[in-house]
Amino acid sequence: MKSYSELTRDELLAIKDELEKEYKEAAAKGLKLDMSRGKPAAKQLDLSRDMLDVVNSSSDLKCEDGVDVRNYGILDGISEAKKIMADILGVSSDNVIVFGNASLNIMYDMVSRAMLFGVLGSTPWSKLDKVKFLCPVPGYDRHFAITELFDVEMINIPMKADGPDMDLVEKYVNNDESVKGIWCVPKYSNPQGITYSDEVVKRFAALKPAAKDFRIFWDNAYAIHDLYEDDKDELLEIFAECRKNGNEDMVYEFCSTSKVTFAGGGISALAASKANLDDVKRTMTIQTIGHDKVNQLRHARYFKDVNGVYEHMKKHAAILRPKFEAVINEFEKELSGLGIASWVKPKGGYFISFETMDGCAKAVVAKCKEAGVTLTGAGATYPYKKDPNDSNIRIAPSLPTEEELKQATELFILCVKLVSVDKLLETA
Amino acid sequence: MKSYSELTRDELLAIKDELEKEYKEAAAKGLKLDMSRGKPAAKQLDLSRDMLDVVNSSSDLKCEDGVDVRNYGILDGISEAKKIMADILGVSSDNVIVFGNASLNIMYDMVSRAMLFGVLGSTPWSKLDKVKFLCPVPGYDRHFAITELFDVEMINIPMKADGPDMDLVEKYVNNDESVKGIWCVPKYSNPQGITYSDEVVKRFAALKPAAKDFRIFWDNAYAIHDLYEDDKDELLEIFAECRKNGNEDMVYEFCSTSKVTFAGGGISALAASKANLDDVKRTMTIQTIGHDKVNQLRHARYFKDVNGVYEHMKKHAAILRPKFEAVINEFEKELSGLGIASWVKPKGGYFISFETMDGCAKAVVAKCKEAGVTLTGAGATYPYKKDPNDSNIRIAPSLPTEEELKQATELFILCVKLVSVDKLLETA
Repeated sequence: MKSYSELTRDELLAIKDELEKEYKEAAAKGLKLDMSRGKPAAKQLDLSRDMLDVVNSSSDLKCEDGVDVRNYGILDGISEAKKIMADILGVSSDNVIVFGNASLNIMYDMVSRAMLFGVLGSTPWSKLDKVKFLCPVPGYDRHFAITELFDVEMINIPMKADGPDMDLVEKYVNNDESVKGIWCVPKYSNPQGITYSDEVVKRFAALKPAAKDFRIFWDNAYAIHDLYEDDKDELLEIFAECRKNGNEDMVYEFCSTSKVTFAGGGISALAASKANLDDVKRTMTIQTIGHDKVNQLRHARYFKDVNGVYEHMKKHAAILRPKFEAVINEFEKELSGLGIASWVKPKGGYFISFETMDGCAKAVVAKCKEAGVTLTGAGATYPYKKDPNDSNIRIAPSLPTEEELKQATELFILCVKLVSVDKLLETA
Repeated sequence: MKSYSELTRDELLAIKDELEKEYKEAAAKGLKLDMSRGKPAAKQLDLSRDMLDVVNSSSDLKCEDGVDVRNYGILDGISEAKKIMADILGVSSDNVIVFGNASLNIMYDMVSRAMLFGVLGSTPWSKLDKVKFLCPVPGYDRHFAITELFDVEMINIPMKADGPDMDLVEKYVNNDESVKGIWCVPKYSNPQGITYSDEVVKRFAALKPAAKDFRIFWDNAYAIHDLYEDDKDELLEIFAECRKNGNEDMVYEFCSTSKVTFAGGGISALAASKANLDDVKRTMTIQTIGHDKVNQLRHARYFKDVNGVYEHMKKHAAILRPKFEAVINEFEKELSGLGIASWVKPKGGYFISFETMDGCAKAVVAKCKEAGVTLTGAGATYPYKKDPNDSNIRIAPSLPTEEELKQATELFILCVKLVSVDKLLETA
């Protein structure tokens, strides 16, 4: 196909006419489709239906620790749940606390705790004149929302093909004492699906922060969310690397079963050094008597061990893979060579990251919405919702059915073309 | 029986001899009993066993709102769970948010949120020179632990027979702008089992706080935890009273099913005015995507409605009542007339509050511990763990079996007598 930029004004106008006709027809269909959030589809939720039966009225309700899971007790999670979460992350159970149904809540609480009480005895961040976080971009909107709420200054760090720009990360972290954190989704990053290379992980682990209370917020949300059994990304386990540098206290790692079992009823975990976990427990013991151990037991008995989790994830992949491929294939068929867009084909995670020409993302999202297809708001993948190039769109193909996805993708492509033609006509 | 204070030194010494012999025998038994925390007994947890079956692999998993409870969505709780929690408290569903398994966590978060972000637009409490909370005493140690952690100055407010000393409460709240809150357990108070009278509730509702961000933390933990079906305490619903005074924003009310279903796996709720709930949701939407809706549905379907909850609570009462009575009867038999102790016979809740002679509580608890019976630490019922009279002991009779309770109570009484005799001998 010929690149749009090589077309004459008349050729562009002719294409525009054609596209507008198609758009009118599409809009008339009254679509109501949602590709905005990384929600599992009903079919995926059904994969864990049997989990609802494993803890029942005739179950032995004592966990390995000997405690009745129905009663109070065990602040940091039951042993069998800890073990599974630890194995998912490749760390020791001793370095894990199991929480409730949302790792987002753990992350929020870690920032909140640092604000109020400091980190391992440091000055509470709320008492400092300035607190900064590094934000690899494009990134996860809910991370940025947390730091924005706490009035943390967010600094964009461009993502490269193998992770954040580490030269920049090192420059900031090693020299600026007000830089207290960085948000990372190190495997199948949200939204690009990029897995940090070994070199990037090693450079993270070797950071020499100017601030001793600097923490890497390592949100390993997609640790086991591979699409291709025979072509998985492998993420280097960061704590082992940190230990080599005496840097074990520098990382908070997060994960959950939100996209393993139930998005609204899973369990989550924090992994960290013993010193950090002790620091967390000091206030956590006042915040709560402990999280829902019945649900922890339900998860542990359902999976038995981490191999049970791995087997389960293959079933998710079987549902998600065709959806991702349908979108990508359509992009390749319809957009390749037009010079108006690029995208990453991810090997896991929940998103496809799409780049329009500069200045087109907001318009594409608006046009899709007008015709009944909801996308993540343009700009959402950047701090303060400000995408400096107005070019990144996050596509979440998991929730719609395959038929819905086909319709939504067609409309999306149509809108990309239409907005791009308009953009080119501005200067043609 | 003759009061100990009327005995001669020789008579006291003779009693002491006898008691020490008994104590030695008791200590030799190697007891290992726990009356320290308000934990439900296994039999009580078993009452809700069938709840584990109501949401199973063949269930319809959509809630009334039409949302699949397994997926993300619904920040403030599913409608059917809201309704039950609202009915327990006698408020409207619109005034309720359902949270996770622990109301303590809601309370902590409400204080934390006020510290960081203020209340309805007020200055964040952490930015103020001084924040004070009123603490009716004796009271609940975990309340005091929260405000202590946040460096809030706690002021003791003596409990009277029908609630906190309201003259004092009014004096502080209506005149001191740094008084931002008061901890209340208004029904079957922890530890005394006192229910606030209508007059006390009306006076609370009619407060004219000097601080517009003053809030009553109304922890209605024992709202439906009556021991006697035909002799229940009735607590006036506070929001209705507040509305009469245009004071609806002044109260945060808390409750949970921790002592209804599972202490470690129930659901909890916050009730508040629309303005307050909107304020909470503004930050809550960044803190979490929502709490475990599967467990909310499990609770809602198990109970069907609030009448199901009431029926269920009768079964708890049937288990708890004999335990409370066994302790109280033993006290009456062994301690009445000795002039060395007093206690409250509660009609509900989880505790028996016991008063030794001044200066004896710590020694009694230590002596019990030495012989294998763990009680709540003396002083725990006061802010900073400082009971000014060293006289209050909280007894939690729910967890031990009836046989264990008998042994523990006998030992406790023995220790009370022994420590009292020692005390009297100091001056005799």
